[in-house]
Amino acid sequence: MAKQIVIVGGVAAGPKAACRVKRLLPDAEVTVIDQDSVISYGGCGIPYYVSGDVADEKELRSTSFHMLRDEFFFAKAKGVKTLTSTRALSIDRTRKSVQVEDLPTGKRSDIPYDTLLLATGSQPVILPIPGNTADGVFTISDLHKAVAIKERLGKGKVGKAVVIGGGAIGIEMAEALTDLWGIETAIVEYADQLLPRIIDWPLATILEKHLRDHNVEVFLGEAAEEIVVEGGKAVGVRTGKRMLDADLVIMAAGVRPRADLARDAGLMVSKTGGIVVNTRMQTSDPDIYAAGDCVEIAHLVSGRRFVAPFGSMANKEGRVAADNMAGIPSTFKGGVGSFILKAFELSIGSVGLSLAAARAEGFAADFTLSSPSDRAHFFPGQDIVCLELIFDRKTRKVLGFQGTGPMNDALSTRIDAAAVAIAAGATIDDFGNIEMAYSPPFSSAIDPINAAAYIADNLCDGRMRQITMEEFYAWMADPGTHPNWQVVDVRHPKQATPFVERFGSGLWCSLPYEQVRDRYLELSADKTLILFCNAGSRSFEVQVFLDHVGLTNNLVLPGGFNVIRRMGADWLPVK
Amino acid sequence: MAKQIVIVGGVAAGPKAACRVKRLLPDAEVTVIDQDSVISYGGCGIPYYVSGDVADEKELRSTSFHMLRDEFFFAKAKGVKTLTSTRALSIDRTRKSVQVEDLPTGKRSDIPYDTLLLATGSQPVILPIPGNTADGVFTISDLHKAVAIKERLGKGKVGKAVVIGGGAIGIEMAEALTDLWGIETAIVEYADQLLPRIIDWPLATILEKHLRDHNVEVFLGEAAEEIVVEGGKAVGVRTGKRMLDADLVIMAAGVRPRADLARDAGLMVSKTGGIVVNTRMQTSDPDIYAAGDCVEIAHLVSGRRFVAPFGSMANKEGRVAADNMAGIPSTFKGGVGSFILKAFELSIGSVGLSLAAARAEGFAADFTLSSPSDRAHFFPGQDIVCLELIFDRKTRKVLGFQGTGPMNDALSTRIDAAAVAIAAGATIDDFGNIEMAYSPPFSSAIDPINAAAYIADNLCDGRMRQITMEEFYAWMADPGTHPNWQVVDVRHPKQATPFVERFGSGLWCSLPYEQVRDRYLELSADKTLILFCNAGSRSFEVQVFLDHVGLTNNLVLPGGFNVIRRMGADWLPVK
Repeated sequence: MAKQIVIVGGVAAGPKAACRVKRLLPDAEVTVIDQDSVISYGGCGIPYYVSGDVADEKELRSTSFHMLRDEFFFAKAKGVKTLTSTRALSIDRTRKSVQVEDLPTGKRSDIPYDTLLLATGSQPVILPIPGNTADGVFTISDLHKAVAIKERLGKGKVGKAVVIGGGAIGIEMAEALTDLWGIETAIVEYADQLLPRIIDWPLATILEKHLRDHNVEVFLGEAAEEIVVEGGKAVGVRTGKRMLDADLVIMAAGVRPRADLARDAGLMVSKTGGIVVNTRMQTSDPDIYAAGDCVEIAHLVSGRRFVAPFGSMANKEGRVAADNMAGIPSTFKGGVGSFILKAFELSIGSVGLSLAAARAEGFAADFTLSSPSDRAHFFPGQDIVCLELIFDRKTRKVLGFQGTGPMNDALSTRIDAAAVAIAAGATIDDFGNIEMAYSPPFSSAIDPINAAAYIADNLCDGRMRQITMEEFYAWMADPGTHPNWQVVDVRHPKQATPFVERFGSGLWCSLPYEQVRDRYLELSADKTLILFCNAGSRSFEVQVFLDHVGLTNNLVLPGGFNVIRRMGADWLPVK
Repeated sequence: MAKQIVIVGGVAAGPKAACRVKRLLPDAEVTVIDQDSVISYGGCGIPYYVSGDVADEKELRSTSFHMLRDEFFFAKAKGVKTLTSTRALSIDRTRKSVQVEDLPTGKRSDIPYDTLLLATGSQPVILPIPGNTADGVFTISDLHKAVAIKERLGKGKVGKAVVIGGGAIGIEMAEALTDLWGIETAIVEYADQLLPRIIDWPLATILEKHLRDHNVEVFLGEAAEEIVVEGGKAVGVRTGKRMLDADLVIMAAGVRPRADLARDAGLMVSKTGGIVVNTRMQTSDPDIYAAGDCVEIAHLVSGRRFVAPFGSMANKEGRVAADNMAGIPSTFKGGVGSFILKAFELSIGSVGLSLAAARAEGFAADFTLSSPSDRAHFFPGQDIVCLELIFDRKTRKVLGFQGTGPMNDALSTRIDAAAVAIAAGATIDDFGNIEMAYSPPFSSAIDPINAAAYIADNLCDGRMRQITMEEFYAWMADPGTHPNWQVVDVRHPKQATPFVERFGSGLWCSLPYEQVRDRYLELSADKTLILFCNAGSRSFEVQVFLDHVGLTNNLVLPGGFNVIRRMGADWLPVK
């Protein structure tokens, strides 16, 4: 009898594993079970379907050669059997069978397996607040929800929307609602910044300003406490601080692994809810594999296990699971959390640990903040990327890398290169020698990723000392907290003058970069000098010189005005 | 007395090292010597200055904050002394001094050094053919030449141009001349393809077609034998096969390290002409360092030493040299030859070894050719990248990676990630798990780089067998050479029909992918079946199935029609 391979879950890891294992074992009978009526779709594309960038939901379910990935396709093209609208109820590990229910009829049956793969995915967190089931409240959990949202938008009955959650999906949905549909949209985020734990504050603030500039309201540090309902319909969201009107509420408060089936079968499931697997994607039962959003994988920087709910990881894990189900001992060692997001005209991404996360993990973490050109600064169309490199001062290992950039692939280029390096355990010295392909239309002779490493080297060896953006913003908001601080603006006087005029030269003085060697005696020896330029690099050069001549009470503001302009501030005299 | 650091060469590695070492040793006296009157410029930007993308040559000499990097700038801002129009004549290693000549006056003097850095760069190869010094013949060696070319163009007296050399600079110059100036331009290349040794034939052919489509004539396998001169002026280029009229001749036949100064001083110089340095960029004299185009570095894949004349490498090497001159034991381990080029609307790049180079080095090299979407195939604006991954069948190590793509950063993203992985000694299995940041606007759930690794895995393990593009093109040009071969076009009949009609179903038959499992008995068991689709992936799936049912005499055409359409061919019934 043919080997029976059963796969529970038909969105990403499941179909990938099914097709791969069928190719490896053409004699096997491969069956994919899914409770949904649609399978094998690009869930990450949902915001672009809602926005209208993707016209038809079928495009999310089609191959690159425009065939719909339905049951017929899997049977005919792949030789894989799919049971849609079929829920897996339980696993009998002794008899090696899965009890399923055909949802339309309620009929139950047992499907025997030789090898089983759980690819049960994740489900959105539904906040336990009043009104969470009202009409007009949606999670982004599957294609049906997406279709329902778009239908509602198409009827023109949505004027205002509230997105609960300032993570990736919340931000993508806010863009989708605002950009094409012109809906007044607000994001409510419980943490005091967007993308908490993933992106550090300065770059998250750049994102926040960008959203506001594109007419998305952003409320941080506010919990959604109630969805206000009238006549069964959501009409608003009440936070601890205000009432926000809304015809549509998107609940995007994160996802949680779907591991009940595994847990009920006695398989090992971690405290954070992910199915425990080894590097061959095998669960605690050697005949049962798991892959995708429902598992925990190793974080290659922190060493901790984490849930990485990305379609890209699901595909990799699914392939490794399939290999092992077919007797090929492939391994999946873990991930570094590569992440990228489009928000209107901005790209924002990260890999590894944020500074906050690295410190929470106990690393001797420090950071660089820089704002170089994304390609040769003389090449038309060049733009600024703002980059943060997180490193360990003791081991010199790079712990993380994150940034914002224009809406092209300039940032993703650097995030991806950093991801490979971080996964390989690279130090800041390795980063300094990363060989980004150079030509003026694509990069600069000193690529931003190399430049960030050089800064880290200077920080690590004590040649550079810096103030954080958080400290600088706090001081600018209330200069009285540090009456002894003074900005030395080393930019061209044309750029510095509006600041000097606004704040007075006692707080903000101008001394052009190329004049410092001649005029440094004009600086106050009894003040803490905060060195300020556009990108931070001139400030560092000035720091080296001032240190040399004994004016050592100085700090570089890393990233400089390029970063601040993008973060925004009430106190800025110029945009 | 202050430590004397002398640097010969003021373009890339020299200024970088000068500024770095001055920051590390603020007490030192740092002197940069250059025979040219202009220093510290982005030489790689010259084609974009000639094209007009960069309006003024001063932009190539300016910082990102718009200060001209002249003698004044280095003195005032950097504390570095520069002697321009000063030629280093010889090095007296015993007395530790450099004899120099002030070119305007002819005055000679000795400059003592404690540590010396040679950053003498490279010089263009001047072909030893008649007419090579005529008026109108240019190399792209410095900014003066660039200004002279642009002046000539601006006067409107150039109607036709010939570029000798189909390498990067030749192609960039051909674009510059054609695109803005509308000059009829031809490239003459001695090898039988563009970018020989760097890019393999299928992708070089894509570039060739793209150039032709943009009105650049391309003559391959032709040596320029004479520059025809009338009245002292170049009027054409005679090759072994034809006479090409030309008012302007660009000689772009490669560059050669400038190592005479080092050689004359008795420093070790390799057979290929590069100054020999260790990983600390130290020459055979421990007090003399060298960096940039004039040195040989280790190739991290082949193990051989090579010259890598890129501004990006010069900066890295210059920084490492500066560190060591200041007592910091930084190392530069070598390079992987990352390379990228813009040609009109095409990007083309590579890293590591080409297939041809890898085989010449004795590796058990094989390749994948694929043509996936550069981001989610449903995302607006997605485009095709054509990728080749070169790997060693014995060790499974990735030896190289190259591709073509649209003119954005989609290709550079993958080249850069591959560069980091190849430098780290990655296998195809490591490549399969490279964690490219995924979101539909930036990449696909199975990134092209992962997909290429999956194909390599299937090839390496014998699950996939392929025909080369070279073999396929040779056969299509003369089907009689293999009367037993037959294309099985598994695309949609709409796509296959024009081919079937053109070639007859004996040579080119149509059997849609999703019908193969039902209709495979219609295929000829006595023919060699060449499986044909758009990207190669459906062909592979069909191969697995046909093998399973015993029709094992079949081969995948990798990359499929997506690649062929971009390579072009006389025999194509559709564009």
